[in-house]
Formats: sequence, structure tokens, C-alpha cells
Amino acid sequence: MLTGHSIINGESHPGGAGTFAGYDPSTGATLEPTYHYASLQDLALAADLADEAFGVYRQLPGKDRARFLRTIATGLDSIAAEVIDRAHRETGLPEARLKGELARTVNQLRLFADVVEEGSWVNARIDPAQPDRKPLPRADIRSVLRPIGPIAVFGSSNFPLAFSVAGGDTASAFAAGNPVLVKAHSAHPGTSELVGQVIARSARECGLPAGVFALLFGAGSKLGAALVQHPKVKGVGFTGSLTAGRSLMDLAASRPEPIPCFTEMSSVNPVFVLPEALRTRNAQIASGLFASFTLGVGQFCTKPGLVFLPRGQDADALVAELKKHVEQASCAPMLTESISKSYRSGLAARQGKPCVSTVAQAGAPGDLASSYAVPVLFEIAGADLVRDPDLAGEVFGPSTLVIRYEDRDEMLALARSVEGQLTATLHGTESDLAASADLIAILERKAGRLIVNGFPTGVEVCHAMVHGGPYPATSDSRFTSVGTQAIYRFVRPVCYQDFPQSALPHELKDENPLGIWRLINGSLTREPYAANREEMLTAVK
Amino acid sequence: MLTGHSIINGESHPGGAGTFAGYDPSTGATLEPTYHYASLQDLALAADLADEAFGVYRQLPGKDRARFLRTIATGLDSIAAEVIDRAHRETGLPEARLKGELARTVNQLRLFADVVEEGSWVNARIDPAQPDRKPLPRADIRSVLRPIGPIAVFGSSNFPLAFSVAGGDTASAFAAGNPVLVKAHSAHPGTSELVGQVIARSARECGLPAGVFALLFGAGSKLGAALVQHPKVKGVGFTGSLTAGRSLMDLAASRPEPIPCFTEMSSVNPVFVLPEALRTRNAQIASGLFASFTLGVGQFCTKPGLVFLPRGQDADALVAELKKHVEQASCAPMLTESISKSYRSGLAARQGKPCVSTVAQAGAPGDLASSYAVPVLFEIAGADLVRDPDLAGEVFGPSTLVIRYEDRDEMLALARSVEGQLTATLHGTESDLAASADLIAILERKAGRLIVNGFPTGVEVCHAMVHGGPYPATSDSRFTSVGTQAIYRFVRPVCYQDFPQSALPHELKDENPLGIWRLINGSLTREPYAANREEMLTAVK
Repeated sequence: MLTGHSIINGESHPGGAGTFAGYDPSTGATLEPTYHYASLQDLALAADLADEAFGVYRQLPGKDRARFLRTIATGLDSIAAEVIDRAHRETGLPEARLKGELARTVNQLRLFADVVEEGSWVNARIDPAQPDRKPLPRADIRSVLRPIGPIAVFGSSNFPLAFSVAGGDTASAFAAGNPVLVKAHSAHPGTSELVGQVIARSARECGLPAGVFALLFGAGSKLGAALVQHPKVKGVGFTGSLTAGRSLMDLAASRPEPIPCFTEMSSVNPVFVLPEALRTRNAQIASGLFASFTLGVGQFCTKPGLVFLPRGQDADALVAELKKHVEQASCAPMLTESISKSYRSGLAARQGKPCVSTVAQAGAPGDLASSYAVPVLFEIAGADLVRDPDLAGEVFGPSTLVIRYEDRDEMLALARSVEGQLTATLHGTESDLAASADLIAILERKAGRLIVNGFPTGVEVCHAMVHGGPYPATSDSRFTSVGTQAIYRFVRPVCYQDFPQSALPHELKDENPLGIWRLINGSLTREPYAANREEMLTAVK
Repeated sequence: MLTGHSIINGESHPGGAGTFAGYDPSTGATLEPTYHYASLQDLALAADLADEAFGVYRQLPGKDRARFLRTIATGLDSIAAEVIDRAHRETGLPEARLKGELARTVNQLRLFADVVEEGSWVNARIDPAQPDRKPLPRADIRSVLRPIGPIAVFGSSNFPLAFSVAGGDTASAFAAGNPVLVKAHSAHPGTSELVGQVIARSARECGLPAGVFALLFGAGSKLGAALVQHPKVKGVGFTGSLTAGRSLMDLAASRPEPIPCFTEMSSVNPVFVLPEALRTRNAQIASGLFASFTLGVGQFCTKPGLVFLPRGQDADALVAELKKHVEQASCAPMLTESISKSYRSGLAARQGKPCVSTVAQAGAPGDLASSYAVPVLFEIAGADLVRDPDLAGEVFGPSTLVIRYEDRDEMLALARSVEGQLTATLHGTESDLAASADLIAILERKAGRLIVNGFPTGVEVCHAMVHGGPYPATSDSRFTSVGTQAIYRFVRPVCYQDFPQSALPHELKDENPLGIWRLINGSLTREPYAANREEMLTAVK
């Protein structure tokens, strides 16, 4: 049952400051119910409750946090039909895609549950006392990662499930031991409320303080800004535009107490097709590229937006293939009116530049709703990009830009000129790659993930994934927002010096009651620590 | 041989923008030679060379970086007498202390060398391909930590060796694979140049590009600001005042491309003496506290500046002991004229408040140079601190403030009111501690390091050390500036998807040529990865 209200203290929270409604981008129709914006007082209440809940939730053992995450996953599975239907109406995304996205969301929750239940992720370190060391004895020093406090999570428009209310930011913040305050994205309020209800119910079932979670509907950027500036909020997770992300970064950095702000923003995900691969696989690369840049109506932060090709017949053949695909492509609705508007203005800006040639565009019947996007393929010369670096800016939607370069040196110079990226892709044979150590070295400095003979869309949720990269791809390239390493955004190490066993966290007690991996005197081990044994070993040496 | 010039491209670099000279705080005398400020052009040259050197240095195996660090350590050992003598004259710190600090500096370099030679610190992760996974195959995903680029390091006044030119920031940045640009602290230019010469010579001996290191003498905050804003600088390490640190943070955050800025700033390191310990060990605690807050003329970021005591006879006894120590204390010169001036104004500000009583101060002969500091002990009531939280501000120098509280609830409220700290200390018996889980939980949210029955000065360089903490103690509580974990400030993960073995970094190749610990499919192992074995194991299951 949708109520149209924020969720605070575990329940629907009426009141607020103004209203809005969901919208079906396929038809332009308004969706029931009316949603009420949370006021700044509502936010203050939610933040106070989160801070209070943190005192309890931060102390819970990993297995209890795992239970919470799994309860949410089970709850989402149980409302699958309903939430997919609502998300389909609110986003225009096909049901099959949303089914996949829900599977990813629940798998992600369960993967984080596994990680915190196993427990070794906390980076426990023990440097035992050395009372006889000269000239000074060494104290007993131990450290472990601890949660930082309430985290503000911003739902994103393009992943109504996997990067929204119970998405990767929320899952990793909960896993780490932090309460979460979600600002719902107004592009899918009903989906957000359904998922929020599952989380609130799961907290209740697990006996957690209700303040561990809140869902807030907010007007434009006002509530978002207040959330990032609230003194009780200690970290931020955001996926969205460069403009919005940078403004949150600036707010977080200019607080009296600056806080970690993890924003994932803008990436054009360059693709380099190397000569031998271009000669031998151009049709295959063209169809893969087309599928990747039009997937989800081009609304992925990993959409390949720049394709670098060496001038010549092989590149002509690849572009001709791409052209065929684009001309036969169908149009689909974008997530919101404002996204489709900004896609159209992005296209117009490119088409307005004399150096840009429009190689192909999909045929669009005249009576499409204004939210529908037309796939377009552009082309420029490398020299054009040097003259006008703005051409490499992100156009969010089903379009890509081919850049033809004259020679290898120009390719390397172009690679050096791109900004920070989430991904960079190489298509090459083994010998192409062997000849490209210099290009790979350049791209390692530009991107969080390098891909060989694949496409950047499709971000695996696993232990080794890095969905991050140098600015403007993200606010802080030292972290990832996808994969189990995302948990490290919302923790900090705490060190315990000369604590008696009884006062140490379980992770650091001599006997290793949790059986986790620990770094003892610089060596990884799952063994308990026994001072005597160390002494004996030292004596033997 | 001191030249009075910056070191750029491996050599003394004449020219610049203005001059200054070293100064002996014990006598007020000016020291030879005259030092020349680097200009912004000099900085630009050093940054260009560092960026170029990064292309080479980032690719070096851990064992080569280890060799560089050890060469620096050996070089410092070889100039021990000279550098200690110069540092003694420039800082007024006793030779014994400087000898210890040099030992710490070279041990630190060697510890980082051990870490990068062993190699497991890079957090290598392998999630192998699952070509048969349904509904979609999984790509081969691997990730490893890589250096971020040239790092700006600011020498600090209070550790002329261990936190300056070849200190912890430099050692960790080099260990991680980054070039370093040091801004020398003007309080010890000769010491800085001697150490800088050793680093430049070590780079040469190890066949590294000279741009891997530069030492810049700079006028006030101008060169420092330019360094943090330079587009080729990718990270910052700083130890110093809150004002300077916050201003660097703000500059780093407001760059077109914001960069990680690690500043270690302000901490008053609260000490809580619990009832039973207070009753049974008050004389011992008093002498330890006195030694800690006057160590190094109170010029440590870990100096205990607030001491919380429950009102009563036991606290009276402890304060009486402290008073005796302070009244018999001798005076010593502070590091610089401006530090001693700000100590005196900090004392005056406290003495000007009617609620503050001056319990004791050391007797100072009238003819001391103005750089000498007088140890002072102050006292207030808990209620005073609530009324005037500024009383808890840092006074850098040999002074501490006793706060008497009425009851346990007041103590907890006071603990909750303190800002972010590097450390918090508890003195307590086992039963005191057992009754203080609530206090410990509060302090875990406030500090990077909690100490039982010890004193916060003395920061062990080891694997588990955390010298960090919530703002304003540092800019980013997720990191430490002391201990081997300091290396994680200056790296970011890079992910390789479907790379052929030949193009992967050594850390990620199947056969594990470096023999490091890796997380394969979520499990830690030092074994090579063999796809077949995994398949066989899966088949057996």
C-alpha cells in the first residue's frame, strides 16, 4: 500500500512541505498517489533518530547485520511482482531489465551479508606488546575498522532498484554498521516507497531501532543539500550528474566538519579499437558497441561515449556496420522528461558544431511522446577534439561519438587528453595488446576499470570490481561504489592501545573468537594470538 | 654542504623569490646560510618533472621501491651526526630526542621497504570468469592498488625528521609508487636540505628519474597554496595547525579536480581517570601525565590537554602531585618565535577567564630568551566547559587543563561534547573499565586511538597504529598518517576485466609470481590461481 509519505521512525510520516507525483514516461501520464515532500523538521527528526540508532547498530555483531541485510533481500523477493510493475510504470524500463536489476539488488544485499558474517573485511591488526624492547618497550597496539555514523544516500534515476533505496550505497552502509537516510529520487517515488517499507519492516523484524533507516521525499536540491549539511550525517553516497554531484561535494567539503562524500558522476568511457582487432573483428565489435551504447536507452554511467579508430578502410567498415545498426534501431522512452530534454539539447549542441558529422540516426515516427530518445551516431577527427575538448563531454542517452585519428602518436595524445573515467576499453588481439603497453599505462591513470575485448556496460557485483575512477568520474578515486570493497567508504580504523582482553572488540581478542583473518606482527593468520607461543618461537630463533 | 637552495631535478636549484634564514631558538641567533624561496616557476618545473617521473616510478616493482627507501635510510644514518647537530641548533630540541627521532625516521623507511617488498599490501583481488554462469556469463575481474601521482608533502615544525622531508608522508608516498614534492618547513631549513640531499642522491644511486623528488623552500603560505592547487599534484600530506590545515583542505576541495588532502591538525587528547585507578594510583598517574604534557616542550599533536577527574579527595591528591611537578619544572625553548608567542597568548586567554584557576606554574628566571615556555597547570569545573566550549581548544605547549566533574552522568556528557581527537586515554582498573563500556563507546566515536593506563605521546610506527581521527583532528578519519596503513592514503584500486595474462600486472597473474596474499573468489590465499583446479573442485562439490 503506497501512502505518498516519507518513512521516519519505521513508519509512514505524514506532513511535509509541498507535493509531487510519479509519472509514466511511456505515456506521459501522472501516477497515483500524490507524494509529500519531507520538511527540514522531518529531516532533523530522522537524523536525530539515526544518530541514536547508531549507538546501538554500530555495536551489533556482523552476523546480526547480515541477518538484517538478508531479511531485506527476502522482503524484496516477496514483493517482486509489485515492485517491478511499479518501477516499469515509473521508469519506462522493460520488465525483463527490471527483473534483472531486482536480482542484482538482492544478490548484492546477500553478498554484503556474507562478507560481514565472515568478518575478515574489518582489517583487524595486532602488534603485540614488546615489554623488553630497547630503548623503549612497545605497547600492545590493535586496530579494526568501525562504522562512521549516519550515511545520506541519494537514490539515482537510472537504477530504480540497484542504486536506489536498497541499492549498493545503502547495502554497503548497513553492512558497515551505519544507519542510512535515503533521499528518494523523484523519478520513481512509488518504487522507492515499496522498497523503503521492506527495509523498515526488516529493521522491525530484526529488533533494530527504527531510526536505523529513513526514506525522505524531497523537493529538488533543497532537502538534499540540507541532508549533506546536517551535523549528524557523517557520510554521503550519490550517483547522478556532474553538476549535482559536484555541488554535494562542495557542500560536504565546506561543512564546519567536512565529511566523506562519495559521488559517482560523469564518464564517457572511451573505447580504443586497435588495428588487428579492427581488421579481423569489425562487424562483431560494431554490434557489441551498438548494443552497449543503446542499452537501457543509453542511460548508464558506463555507456561507451567515445570510440577511437585509426583512419582507414577497416574503420570505415566498422562505422558502416554501426550506421546500419543505428538506422534500424527503435526509439524508447527515457527515464524522465528532464533527462530526455537534456539528451535532445546534447544532440543539438553536437549537431551545431561544423566539425561534427551525424553519421546515422534512427528513424523516429512523428507521434512519439516527447520522452522518447532517438539513437544517433556522430563522428569527428582527432584534431577536432584537440581544438574543442568539450566534444568529449557526456551526452547521457543512446548516442556515441567516433573519433578518427591519423596515427599512433595522435592516439596516445588523445588518450592523454581525456578526463577521469569509470572505464576505458581496448579491443585488440594479443599482439595488439603487446604493442600497447604505453596506451594501457595512460589509461591506468585515467580510469577505475580497464576492459579488454568487452564493453563497459554491465558492472559485475563482486570482490574485485572497481566502479570508481579519477574526477570527474567520481569524487574520490580511492573508493568504489560497486562490489564488496564499497563497504570501505563508510568506515574508519580505530586503534586500541594496551586494552585488557575484556574491553577489546571481539575482532581483536587474543583467542580470535570470530575466526577471522588478522594481521599479527605484519603476517596474515587466522590463528589465535598467544603471547607465549610468540615468545617460544622467538626463543627458538 | 648547505647551499641555501631548493632541490629540483636532483640538484641544488638557484634563483627564486626572496630569502630567509634559519634561527636558533635557544639563543635567538640567525643561522647560515641564507635560504632562497622557490618561485612559482620553480614549482611548475618540479611538478612537470614529477609528473614525468611518475610514468616511470609507478611501474617499478616493490623490490625496487624498497631499495630506494633503504638507500635513503642508509644515507640518513651516514649523516646522523651532522643532521642531528643542525636540527638541534634549528629547533632547540635536545640531541637525545633528535637521535631517537632519526632512528624512528630510518626505521619507518625500512618498515615501508619491508611492506612493499613483501607486496601483499596491494589488496590484489581475483574474481575469475564464469563463462557458464546463468543468466549471464561472468567476466574475469581483477583489481589491485596503484599509486595516484605526485604528492605534495609539507614538512612540520615539531618533527624536523620524522614528519618532515623524509618523514612518514614521504616514506608512504614513495612506498606506494608516487613522486614527492616537499615544501620544507622554514623552522629547520638546513635540516631539510641535508635530508633532501640524501633523497636526491639515493634516487640517483637507484637509477630513478630525478623528478621523483623535489624540495622547495617557500614563502609563508603562498608556495604551499600553489603546490596544493597545481594540476599535476594529485594528493597532499600535511601536519600542522588547524588554520593552515583547513585552508589546505579547502584549496584541495575547491580545485577544478579536487584531490585527496590528508591534514593532521588539532587534538587535545582527553584523559579520563576513573575512580578506582584515581584512588590507588594517583601519584603514578600524576607523574606520567606531567611527563607526557611537557614532553618535547608540549609540542606534540598527541599532548594530553584535557584531564577529566571526578571531584573529591582522590582528585585533590592527584592535582596536588601534578602541582608539585609543575612548580619544579624547568623551562625550555619552543621551536619557533611564533609558536612561543602563540603559546603565551593561549595561556593569557585562559588566564583571562574568571572560571579558570591557575593551579601551578613553573618558576621562570627573568632573563630567559622569549622563545622559552613556562609549564602551566589550569583547572576548571565541568560546568565551565559546557558554558564555554572554547576552553577545550588546543594550547600548543607544556600546559594542560584539569576538568573536575560532579558525577558520572556529567562525565559522559562532557565526553560527548568533545570534538574529534587523535587519541583518548582512560586510566582505570579492570573493574573501572568493566563499568565504562558507555564511556568507551563514546570515545570510539571521537578518536582514532584509545589508550588504557598509558599516555598518548609516543606514537608507535607499526602495522596497527592509527594516527588519525575525526575532524578537526584530521581531514579524513578513514586514514592514518603513522604506521604502515599510511600507504593507503596515496593509492587507488584499478580493475582489469578480461585481460590476457601477458597484459596483467604481476600482482594479478594466475601463477602469482610475487607470492603475495590475494583474495580469490572472496577467499585469501597465496596459492597460484588455476582455472582447472577450481573447475575440478566445483565438479567434486
